[in-house]
Amino acid sequence: MAERLVVIGGDAAGLSAASQARDRRGPDDLRIVAFEKGAHAAYSACGIPYLVGGEVTDVESLVARRPEVFRDELAIDLRLRSEVVEIDLGRRAVEVHDHRDGERRWEPFDQLVVATGAVPVRPDLPGATAEGVHGVQTLDDGIAILRTLRERRPETAVVVGAGYIGLEMAEALVRRGLKVSLVDAAEQPMGTLDPDMGALVADALRDLGVEVHLGERIEGFAESGGRVTAARTENLELPADVVVLGLGTRPNSGLAEAAGIPVGETSGIVTDRRMQTSVEGVWAAGDCVETFHLVSRRPVAIALGTHANKQGRVAGINIGGGYAAFPGVLGTAVSKICEYEVARTGLSSAEAAGAGFETVEETVESTTRAGYYPGARRMRTKMIAERGTGRLLGAQIIGGEGAAKRIDVLAVAVWHGMTVEEMTGLDLSYAPPYAPVWDPVLITARKTAERVGQAAGRDGRRS
Amino acid sequence: MAERLVVIGGDAAGLSAASQARDRRGPDDLRIVAFEKGAHAAYSACGIPYLVGGEVTDVESLVARRPEVFRDELAIDLRLRSEVVEIDLGRRAVEVHDHRDGERRWEPFDQLVVATGAVPVRPDLPGATAEGVHGVQTLDDGIAILRTLRERRPETAVVVGAGYIGLEMAEALVRRGLKVSLVDAAEQPMGTLDPDMGALVADALRDLGVEVHLGERIEGFAESGGRVTAARTENLELPADVVVLGLGTRPNSGLAEAAGIPVGETSGIVTDRRMQTSVEGVWAAGDCVETFHLVSRRPVAIALGTHANKQGRVAGINIGGGYAAFPGVLGTAVSKICEYEVARTGLSSAEAAGAGFETVEETVESTTRAGYYPGARRMRTKMIAERGTGRLLGAQIIGGEGAAKRIDVLAVAVWHGMTVEEMTGLDLSYAPPYAPVWDPVLITARKTAERVGQAAGRDGRRS
Repeated sequence: MAERLVVIGGDAAGLSAASQARDRRGPDDLRIVAFEKGAHAAYSACGIPYLVGGEVTDVESLVARRPEVFRDELAIDLRLRSEVVEIDLGRRAVEVHDHRDGERRWEPFDQLVVATGAVPVRPDLPGATAEGVHGVQTLDDGIAILRTLRERRPETAVVVGAGYIGLEMAEALVRRGLKVSLVDAAEQPMGTLDPDMGALVADALRDLGVEVHLGERIEGFAESGGRVTAARTENLELPADVVVLGLGTRPNSGLAEAAGIPVGETSGIVTDRRMQTSVEGVWAAGDCVETFHLVSRRPVAIALGTHANKQGRVAGINIGGGYAAFPGVLGTAVSKICEYEVARTGLSSAEAAGAGFETVEETVESTTRAGYYPGARRMRTKMIAERGTGRLLGAQIIGGEGAAKRIDVLAVAVWHGMTVEEMTGLDLSYAPPYAPVWDPVLITARKTAERVGQAAGRDGRRS
Repeated sequence: MAERLVVIGGDAAGLSAASQARDRRGPDDLRIVAFEKGAHAAYSACGIPYLVGGEVTDVESLVARRPEVFRDELAIDLRLRSEVVEIDLGRRAVEVHDHRDGERRWEPFDQLVVATGAVPVRPDLPGATAEGVHGVQTLDDGIAILRTLRERRPETAVVVGAGYIGLEMAEALVRRGLKVSLVDAAEQPMGTLDPDMGALVADALRDLGVEVHLGERIEGFAESGGRVTAARTENLELPADVVVLGLGTRPNSGLAEAAGIPVGETSGIVTDRRMQTSVEGVWAAGDCVETFHLVSRRPVAIALGTHANKQGRVAGINIGGGYAAFPGVLGTAVSKICEYEVARTGLSSAEAAGAGFETVEETVESTTRAGYYPGARRMRTKMIAERGTGRLLGAQIIGGEGAAKRIDVLAVAVWHGMTVEEMTGLDLSYAPPYAPVWDPVLITARKTAERVGQAAGRDGRRS
């Protein structure tokens, strides 16, 4: 008799797992049912800010694969608006609340993939449930913001949270002609960047016309007739016809935890490198799990589509009878903020200190192309190396068009524990339309290596 | 008494060596004299096609540092139009022919850097010395082509040689409104690419309006009144008011060889990893040396400004009393051909076979950005892996804007001998303006890993 695979969650992680399992095992060997509580599946949540900003005009273009494709071509029984409300590991079954007919049913499984994603952090503040206060977690959230823009013609917006999503949403709303205020309790936007790099981002936002309020904590929202009218901090009252909450997410692991599946210190579900939980045949992948940071060697929970896809694939290959492992992450991230490209990998300065490293750092101003070639843009590259060894621990880039993707070169270098001195010899590509003859990566490695040498010289003098 | 460092060649390698040596040793400790036979020094030869094409309008912008800067700020006695005609290792002196006053003088050295660059391959064919037949080796060549364009208003051009420089020059001349024919004896442009990738480049050139003649060998040039009028192959007579020879270069090692400094099988000067020749205190760097290919493990001579800069720096650090090593190369290269970005690293298919590898290959079509994000361009990524181990031996990329620089990620992967399977886990950056959720690098690694697995399956069946 065929085994039955149940997948909880119809997005990147869950459907990657389902597809990979199907790739290796036919419908007669493995039946696959995927439950998605929302009305959409298999879409790019990362595309929502561009949908709101208008760069992407067709909602459907964010959907990677239509539900019919899963059903008809992959024999994956994808059921939308079907919310799994309980996992019973003893019976090996899940209870599904079908929002289409209101019924609840128990569905048995032999193998289970928990891919429940993340939940947005929503402050428990006065007025937080007023109309016009939006999250940016699901495609439905994005569609709701678009509807508010169209139907209410708001003039003012407050974006709460200056992380990647908050910044992308602030820019999107400026594009739509709104007067936008951005509020964050931290002293800089993009808290995962070092302060010097974060300050550049704040400047770019101000240049765009965003009112940037840092070090301000939202205390509540004013409303009138059930609709939001303003956001309040201790010191400010900011008019807001629309509010967007971009306060980050945490792993949506409650369902798993209630069933007795272990979750870790990050509140993400714990898996082995094959993405299996401590329960045989129960797998987890995507934003709901915690993973391993290859530099800090600590568990981390990072909600990112690229990890979700990889982890889902790994789970699916293993369910399919193959072998695959997810090795861990470097915290690589990239974002577009106005004309700035912003990217990071490995540990920031503060993260490195938190992991017990003593660091040597250098920041270099350079250009994306040969200085004389048209379209050369300024870029700033920062490297963080371990004192003594010179091992690259992390890097950050801010610059114009063509700057950010260089972070991937640095990610591979961090992956291999390269020293900045070794990096100076790397055979990177050069032609005037693409790089100065000393690529910014190489020149920053050189300058950082010089700093490492100076620090070693000081160390030497003490002995 | 101060040591005396003589540098032969006033470009990337020679002047990097001089600058680095100066950085570490003051003028009282080390006198530095650099002889450059041409009228220009420290310029970007790679910028010449863009000068000819008009993207770069100011000749001076190609000059990285003015001669006065070397003299006044770095105490490097840079002498232009000063050609070293002999090296006497016994006397430790060089004979310099000063083209400014016609005199010849012997100049002593304690340390010597040979940075004599490359010489263009020029066919010994009838008419090859006619007016209007140009090389593209030096800034003077570039200026001469510009002068021909301005003064003779040519309508037709033949570019001989379909390597990077030939292609860049063909595009430059099309930009100037000329009718351009491109001729190469090989069956594809860019012989260092695999044929399937080279065919795409040929198509792009044809789309640009270039007449592409492959498999045709130039047999001579017709002239009238001393000026070129046409280029002839066995089968064709191609009208040519101007001819550009882009047939590649070879190491300019004759001066060194005549002095008894060993040159290798590539005709490049042999050095150790510190860039010292077998003669104590005699160093060499740049296009005139041969270096080590890290994948084929064979000597190679690759004329490229980025290697010249690195090697010169290494020589200069060692002369300055430090320690630095040049580790070798991967053959990384990138070029812009019309709207195409073209890049490679490691070994091509043919090169891998030549080095004794049996390979498994895969080519993947993808996009530079998320498919739904504006400006997403098609790109094709090819990976060449060793059969059995799955080790990445080389990669090639052709695509639209944003494609080519990804080659650097692959260069670092080849550098570390990563397997394509290991690469599938790499934490590369993702956001819709920069990549699909599966970056082309990752998806190609996945597909190549699948091929490696299939090949291993076949191997397994035989046992």
